[in-house]
Amino acid sequence: MGFLHDGHLSLIRAARANCDCLVVSIFVNPTQFAPSEDLAKYPRDIDGDLAACEKEGVDLVFAPLPEEMFKNDKSVEIMESRISTGLCGKSRPAFFAGVATVVGKLFNIIEPDLAVFGQKDAQQARVIQKMVRDLDFCVEIQVGPIVRESDGLAMSSRNSYLSATARIQATCLSRALKIAVERYGKGEHKSDLLKAKMRDCIEESELARVDYIDIVDAFTMDPVDSIDGSVFVCLAVSLDGVRLIDNVLISAGAVPPGFLPQSLP
Amino acid sequence: MGFLHDGHLSLIRAARANCDCLVVSIFVNPTQFAPSEDLAKYPRDIDGDLAACEKEGVDLVFAPLPEEMFKNDKSVEIMESRISTGLCGKSRPAFFAGVATVVGKLFNIIEPDLAVFGQKDAQQARVIQKMVRDLDFCVEIQVGPIVRESDGLAMSSRNSYLSATARIQATCLSRALKIAVERYGKGEHKSDLLKAKMRDCIEESELARVDYIDIVDAFTMDPVDSIDGSVFVCLAVSLDGVRLIDNVLISAGAVPPGFLPQSLP
Repeated sequence: MGFLHDGHLSLIRAARANCDCLVVSIFVNPTQFAPSEDLAKYPRDIDGDLAACEKEGVDLVFAPLPEEMFKNDKSVEIMESRISTGLCGKSRPAFFAGVATVVGKLFNIIEPDLAVFGQKDAQQARVIQKMVRDLDFCVEIQVGPIVRESDGLAMSSRNSYLSATARIQATCLSRALKIAVERYGKGEHKSDLLKAKMRDCIEESELARVDYIDIVDAFTMDPVDSIDGSVFVCLAVSLDGVRLIDNVLISAGAVPPGFLPQSLP
Repeated sequence: MGFLHDGHLSLIRAARANCDCLVVSIFVNPTQFAPSEDLAKYPRDIDGDLAACEKEGVDLVFAPLPEEMFKNDKSVEIMESRISTGLCGKSRPAFFAGVATVVGKLFNIIEPDLAVFGQKDAQQARVIQKMVRDLDFCVEIQVGPIVRESDGLAMSSRNSYLSATARIQATCLSRALKIAVERYGKGEHKSDLLKAKMRDCIEESELARVDYIDIVDAFTMDPVDSIDGSVFVCLAVSLDGVRLIDNVLISAGAVPPGFLPQSLP
């Protein structure tokens, strides 16, 4: 969706290392925003993005206009009905159909051999992996690790919306994830107890409102009562109206292809 | 779906004339049958089909097993929500999602430059055309004309289910279409009056039960009150429990790409 930051650039570099011809898509996809959401004010900087892509040795930037991507009488969507129902799919019901459909279109237009997605949008990456498997898209999905600011905040284009105060308090997301990882390491496997500690951490920040805190099976994205296989610990928090997401993978056995556990600062 | 008849062979020949490498898919797709429908007893003859394909110079027959096409935990579908809602979509609600999804998978697996569909399944061909446009599949869709028995019955694998008596009465479908075309030619453009005459024709056959008789815009597949652009006259009729469909294109201005008006015997 453009407004490229170091998280995006890390994905571009990962792709650059594996591709003869590297295409970056930049498209603020209207179909994944609900009418109430921030489509119009979503940050855009196509000139800065193009300069950054050039510096990274990108071969082609595909930046279509919305009217080039979507006909007025469009009527076909790609729907995922399992992995996409919880977490962000609960608070944003049309989101993953919008994502899956536009990514399917991009795959058909570009016909990549390899496509790179970020682990920060773990649910999105899992939906794409499921779509590729179930619809037999001939593309390998690579997942790049979350890139964080030095204080732990996961990089996101939406961070640019944060006021100075909200920016300081926004570290509550990664701190809450770290609490869960540390308590799990000390033997606490019950989701309810881990989630309660995370909520306590978030609620110490007066600007923060929890959208969801969940611990989900890393394959099915179904909530688990207790961690006895690999899970994503996921959360979405609004700070002064700016909705941020973050997650950490706790590996306990097999993990979905391409995902890696990562340390938190 | 195999059990190849002269209608299928006409599509194979049309493709053969335009392709270096010709692939025929033969797959009785379980996801386009409702539980109440005829999946288990749908006619199959893979040996006969392979012999027919060899005779037509087919390069490859792709005949996967259902378990090779669909994982137990599949959760991704391609949904068309406009063209697919009426006609066969009304009486068979899961049908076109099943069709669109499996055709999307076949396109991704085979990566054809050209794919040929039959005009007998006009709504299906329009759904596929819409899917290709809206999801940017890089494939050209060609539509082949309906092939009929000498008495007018459109060829269909399901014709093999018909008893001798039902086979004779099955000509009521094409006769009803012919009545509509002739009355339209004499200046009758009102759908209700044309449909009533068609129904009278069908109901003369004691084994026939009308599922639907509709006159729809050839682009949107929406019912029209009066014919003032190109339309499909469509019907679905059960004869002794065997459901048959047929249609005719009345051209009055532009028609969807690849479709042609055809004469009825």
